[in-house]
Amino acid sequence: MDAPNTHVAADRTTRVRCHELAPIAGDFLANVAIIEAAILDAQHSGVQLLVLPELATSGYYLTADEARACAISADAALFNRWARMLSPDAVIVVGFVETDGTALYNSVAVLTEAGPLAVYRKTHLWDSEVDLFLAGTDPAPVVDTPLGKLGILICYDLEFPEMPRNLALRGAEIIAVPTNWPLVPRPNGEHPPEVVQAMAAARASSVAIICCDRSGVERGNEWTQGTAIVGPDGWRRGLKDENGVLESSVTIGARRTQIGPRNNVMTDRRPELYF
Amino acid sequence: MDAPNTHVAADRTTRVRCHELAPIAGDFLANVAIIEAAILDAQHSGVQLLVLPELATSGYYLTADEARACAISADAALFNRWARMLSPDAVIVVGFVETDGTALYNSVAVLTEAGPLAVYRKTHLWDSEVDLFLAGTDPAPVVDTPLGKLGILICYDLEFPEMPRNLALRGAEIIAVPTNWPLVPRPNGEHPPEVVQAMAAARASSVAIICCDRSGVERGNEWTQGTAIVGPDGWRRGLKDENGVLESSVTIGARRTQIGPRNNVMTDRRPELYF
Repeated sequence: MDAPNTHVAADRTTRVRCHELAPIAGDFLANVAIIEAAILDAQHSGVQLLVLPELATSGYYLTADEARACAISADAALFNRWARMLSPDAVIVVGFVETDGTALYNSVAVLTEAGPLAVYRKTHLWDSEVDLFLAGTDPAPVVDTPLGKLGILICYDLEFPEMPRNLALRGAEIIAVPTNWPLVPRPNGEHPPEVVQAMAAARASSVAIICCDRSGVERGNEWTQGTAIVGPDGWRRGLKDENGVLESSVTIGARRTQIGPRNNVMTDRRPELYF
Repeated sequence: MDAPNTHVAADRTTRVRCHELAPIAGDFLANVAIIEAAILDAQHSGVQLLVLPELATSGYYLTADEARACAISADAALFNRWARMLSPDAVIVVGFVETDGTALYNSVAVLTEAGPLAVYRKTHLWDSEVDLFLAGTDPAPVVDTPLGKLGILICYDLEFPEMPRNLALRGAEIIAVPTNWPLVPRPNGEHPPEVVQAMAAARASSVAIICCDRSGVERGNEWTQGTAIVGPDGWRRGLKDENGVLESSVTIGARRTQIGPRNNVMTDRRPELYF
């Protein structure tokens, strides 16, 4: 008698939270306190994957001096401090201003209790970000975490369909996307345009996409507050509470790319035609 | 004094119609009559771009014998007959069963008064289509038409983000997508999932995407009837009438890919990172 088929991984369910924080422009210590309160609250609630906004340590509309004053390195002690707050299966994804001693980057750190697993520098910069930051030159990462393979994008990166697709092709099961989405007009009844793109990208590659936006009017600028937990089926999950917390379970099915008896969104691709 | 800048093409507005026909499975002559009525009505109304459903000459859930009985070649006299119905600036896009004398293909023809401009064989086949059709081996075309550069996809092709992106990179300004979308469940208040993908693809590349679905329960199968005219901004236009006609103007702005003072969705791409 044959051994049972052990090739098919089991479905895995992850408790995901986004927390739409309101960082204070240029006030690093205040923002660290806001972030640490969010981490502790999530740990208390048994959240496994906590996604926080882009540039959570600094705010967004910064002068060059403010950005530099908030900047920390990828191996800053702060990340180890945050790592020590985490339970063994928890992962947090948080945006910060990174410096390599010379330039600044709009970066995201992925942390577990073991410390930082990865830092990604945003590769597609929006508008006046180019006045503050250098664009990253490394591809967006797919990080091995206790929760599975986690892809990372930052805000405008997601608007390039190649980016989530590429992460999925490299094995990402969940893609975390810290964002700061400026509020733009949209027709009544429609989701924010960036959420439409997240939903489409999730369904196209059968991958979960977790977007954490920010809140709080900053120097007169409003935010879409479009935080969304999108499952591998392309549909949104959960309902954001009055504190800007959106939480839901996300199940990553082992056969999720098989969308019909004879169709698989990944193996049906015909890359020879995508020149 | 400098001459005025003549490098920037003018914005162009096109009157677009989708007609959600209800083809009769296997009844070629009846379907030709349905299509010709739709062409004449559109011409009468001054429509410039008429998009009709996938497999409009044959219906969808066919036996092999029925598909073969409905099949015509890419140079069939029927296309010239339809071409003669058109005014000088009109373009129609219509799905049909194509035969090359041996195999069958799920194809779409692009016609003007000058005759057929292009025939495209669907490259991503859905479910039991593989029992009837060979998949095309040529890339989806970008066709020079009196209305501008027109890209063509067929139904499931659109679910691969590479396909509309690739057409846009090759200059497509409008993408016509004849479809037969089987009805699938979706959360209350959401658009059909294929429409979400059309909206995201349109916005990502600042290209208009025109999806014409079909109607009419066929052998017990229902259709999403998700016909949508999506502008280069990613938002839907027009309201379908009780006859299944959706009509709207679509404006293709010369600077449409410039989505902010310092951002362009096409030139901001970083293809070296999309490996």
